[in-house]
Amino acid sequence: MVLNKAGREIPQPYAEQHGIYEGELAHITTYKEASRTIKPVKPGETKLLADIREAIERTGLTDGMTISFHHHFREGDFVMNMVLAEIAAMGIKDISIAPSSIANVHEPLIEHIKNGVVTQITSSGLRDKVGAAISSRIMDKPVIIRSHGGRARAIAAGDIHIDVAFLGAPSSDAYGNANGTKGKATCGSLGYAMIDAKYADQVVIITDTLVPYPNAPASISQTDVDFVVEVESIGDPAGIAKGATRFTKNPKELLIAENAAKVITASPYYKEGFSFQTGTGGSSLAVTRFIKEKMLADGIKAGFVLGGITNAMVDLLKEGLTEKIIDVQDFDHPSAVSLGENDAHCEIDANMYASPLSKGAVVNQLDTAVLSALEVDTDFNVNVITGSDGVLRGASGGHSDTSMACKMSLVIAPLIRGRIPTFVDRVNTVVTPGDSVDVVVTEIGIAINPKRTDLLEHFKHIDVPQYTIAELKDKAYQIVGTPEPIAYGEHVVALIEYRDGSLIDVVYNV
Amino acid sequence: MVLNKAGREIPQPYAEQHGIYEGELAHITTYKEASRTIKPVKPGETKLLADIREAIERTGLTDGMTISFHHHFREGDFVMNMVLAEIAAMGIKDISIAPSSIANVHEPLIEHIKNGVVTQITSSGLRDKVGAAISSRIMDKPVIIRSHGGRARAIAAGDIHIDVAFLGAPSSDAYGNANGTKGKATCGSLGYAMIDAKYADQVVIITDTLVPYPNAPASISQTDVDFVVEVESIGDPAGIAKGATRFTKNPKELLIAENAAKVITASPYYKEGFSFQTGTGGSSLAVTRFIKEKMLADGIKAGFVLGGITNAMVDLLKEGLTEKIIDVQDFDHPSAVSLGENDAHCEIDANMYASPLSKGAVVNQLDTAVLSALEVDTDFNVNVITGSDGVLRGASGGHSDTSMACKMSLVIAPLIRGRIPTFVDRVNTVVTPGDSVDVVVTEIGIAINPKRTDLLEHFKHIDVPQYTIAELKDKAYQIVGTPEPIAYGEHVVALIEYRDGSLIDVVYNV
Repeated sequence: MVLNKAGREIPQPYAEQHGIYEGELAHITTYKEASRTIKPVKPGETKLLADIREAIERTGLTDGMTISFHHHFREGDFVMNMVLAEIAAMGIKDISIAPSSIANVHEPLIEHIKNGVVTQITSSGLRDKVGAAISSRIMDKPVIIRSHGGRARAIAAGDIHIDVAFLGAPSSDAYGNANGTKGKATCGSLGYAMIDAKYADQVVIITDTLVPYPNAPASISQTDVDFVVEVESIGDPAGIAKGATRFTKNPKELLIAENAAKVITASPYYKEGFSFQTGTGGSSLAVTRFIKEKMLADGIKAGFVLGGITNAMVDLLKEGLTEKIIDVQDFDHPSAVSLGENDAHCEIDANMYASPLSKGAVVNQLDTAVLSALEVDTDFNVNVITGSDGVLRGASGGHSDTSMACKMSLVIAPLIRGRIPTFVDRVNTVVTPGDSVDVVVTEIGIAINPKRTDLLEHFKHIDVPQYTIAELKDKAYQIVGTPEPIAYGEHVVALIEYRDGSLIDVVYNV
Repeated sequence: MVLNKAGREIPQPYAEQHGIYEGELAHITTYKEASRTIKPVKPGETKLLADIREAIERTGLTDGMTISFHHHFREGDFVMNMVLAEIAAMGIKDISIAPSSIANVHEPLIEHIKNGVVTQITSSGLRDKVGAAISSRIMDKPVIIRSHGGRARAIAAGDIHIDVAFLGAPSSDAYGNANGTKGKATCGSLGYAMIDAKYADQVVIITDTLVPYPNAPASISQTDVDFVVEVESIGDPAGIAKGATRFTKNPKELLIAENAAKVITASPYYKEGFSFQTGTGGSSLAVTRFIKEKMLADGIKAGFVLGGITNAMVDLLKEGLTEKIIDVQDFDHPSAVSLGENDAHCEIDANMYASPLSKGAVVNQLDTAVLSALEVDTDFNVNVITGSDGVLRGASGGHSDTSMACKMSLVIAPLIRGRIPTFVDRVNTVVTPGDSVDVVVTEIGIAINPKRTDLLEHFKHIDVPQYTIAELKDKAYQIVGTPEPIAYGEHVVALIEYRDGSLIDVVYNV
């Protein structure tokens, strides 16, 4: 075991393979960018194939290769299941998959793992049944959990080398120019897929809306695409927007949101041209609404909003309250539509969004970000990947990227959820180190990271109750009692990479 | 000497270094893409520097390195002269320059060559005084002339490795997001610069219009930029648009244009959704005008027009006569404005425009292209680089790229220019091999390449006089006499690369 700088013990072999977390910027050094093998496409050659099977055959996909997918269709994705079913039917085994994330809809993956079709996974997250199956140890090799910026980094640095990317595209022409703003299953930004398209040796575009050449503007360019396949349907629009945009009426969530908005608008960063990211979920959407009210009252306009875009952000743009929307992913249909229609609503890839190894990601320019948490501990470490039972069920997302890089990160969470404390002595799993968290916001008040002496001073008189992080934990324990320790097994089922590629934690089987 | 497939003798050492032309697709094979060394930019770090000198210092530019520039400012460019003057003042020597092209305005380059500051050049073209100086042998190493697609290929394949790209940008924010549609010296598309930005180890954006972050949409992204410098002025708008958009009243040019338009609109490719590229110059612009009249009369609409965009193309879009403009470079101000305003006017990089090693360039999808010529010989070989005196004064441009890849290439030229025949037994320099040329168009009629038996058959009854290419040459010689051979020296001053990187010809000193 090797102890890392987040206070976590990393088993020796994994520590040697990946390195261990040694601080936010310890591993950020000059490097040679990875590159791909390109098979030029000559005049007269066609890229349009009959079906997914022909695409798999033409790419020469064989046992042991790495394939990738994007998660822009979220719970509405048909692509990963279709492709893996075909791969399984063809008898191909020992495949590594590197989707940008995995959703509940990908439950068939469990069988592919059990049958030896899929033997390695890297992903931002693992939901419900797939997460539970992984936690119960159906795979020999641990899943590697990477943040969105960390995945872009891993691809650029060559830690992930994608042999074939199978990328669902709401619209494409027969030469591979693809975007997410037109078609039957519009998902808006293709920000995560754009990275795969740039670095994969081979790229297969799978679309249900084939349009005349040239499909321009394109998020993915013909110069990155080898083959195009038209299928009946690539995704379910209802699933793409699932659960993202509910406006909360929950009083606790509203209190959290109000407190977060107070912190942001009382901060030194709140001024003409400021920037923020709020994400999805009831409280987050409400934060945007509360900030908006204050901006209107103060006559202040944002320079840009970033994300993970929802309708709430689109409204800011429409009402002239932000100059730009910078968009790596859309969570609802209005956002996807806005991206296609508004020049000030701009698509970026995951590298530009959040990679710590890029020549400067947008998160580096971000003033403040609002991030959720499953658990927060007294060192401000945040867990967004495992439940209170220790089972994999969340996603790393942009959490560690944004919280590290922005000027003031807010982690919002209720004190308790049901009978479970959110604030604990020690999180089950560290995804974001406490060093990256500036202010924790709950329904009863806030805790400022003592390292941010500037914020402690600045917020002396803010109209929100202030606690130490230990006091928040004590209050949670007073209500629901001290949680029982989890009875983990002895097998590592997931490696949690920090955004720089080093290991910040591991997850054992339950 | 080694004889290549264009019938040209290539000196042994150069033949060994570059390979020789062996046919249009002989060297198009699978390859590992080149990559760059990236120095990550951390949160809080600034890219904005005081001046060009500081940028040169910060990049660590030293003797022997390769730097690049783009030619989107054409005769209005201030950037290359500014940067080279500073490099010279700092005492740096033995620099290779890899601009996408060189204009008359770059005459100061002659002194930098003589002083040993610049010792190697690759470029698409060399104009007037610089060309004459190179032809008079002021450099030891021959200039390498590359087509636009060939340059993109060379960069992607690692034949050109750019240490530092100095890229003028009409607008940029302090983090390097740059575009050509806003600012004081708008040039529109930054298509050639976009390639340098993606592959250069370090990129310096030089702008005279610094705008608030984020400058989006951006042609060059912050993730490709290391430093930003603000200067008083990067270019002269009058020089940017110089000479491009004159509508000819010259009867000979109009006849050529009319014949070309007749060939295109009588061709099998002329139908709903067809595509074409016409370029600049009096005849070319007139071709667009004649085609437009026919399209209006026939109720036919183009799928896209490509180029090298001029106001004539923009008019087609405005009048609903083309679905899209695909734009690697703009030749006038209205085109630059249109790119910034119209979603159907789309910017592409030089790789997507024309690289033979890409996964499929737009030229591969092009129906027909109209290209000019300084000389055409009886094997249909075209010279666009040396004058009738053998002196370097033209540019390879997209000539060999488009003519090879499109379905029907037209080379337009007057039979004679002054007392000089355009049609000759043997061109001084081969830039585009005869295999790539389908129809030659003059004021008196056309010559179809006998290899295109399909076109010979199709155009049997076209309302344009038809000749053999030898007949065109004979007619030219009848008028002005047989040209005297040029008294070349013994030193190679330029290597002419075919788009695939092999040598199609060399140019000797005069």
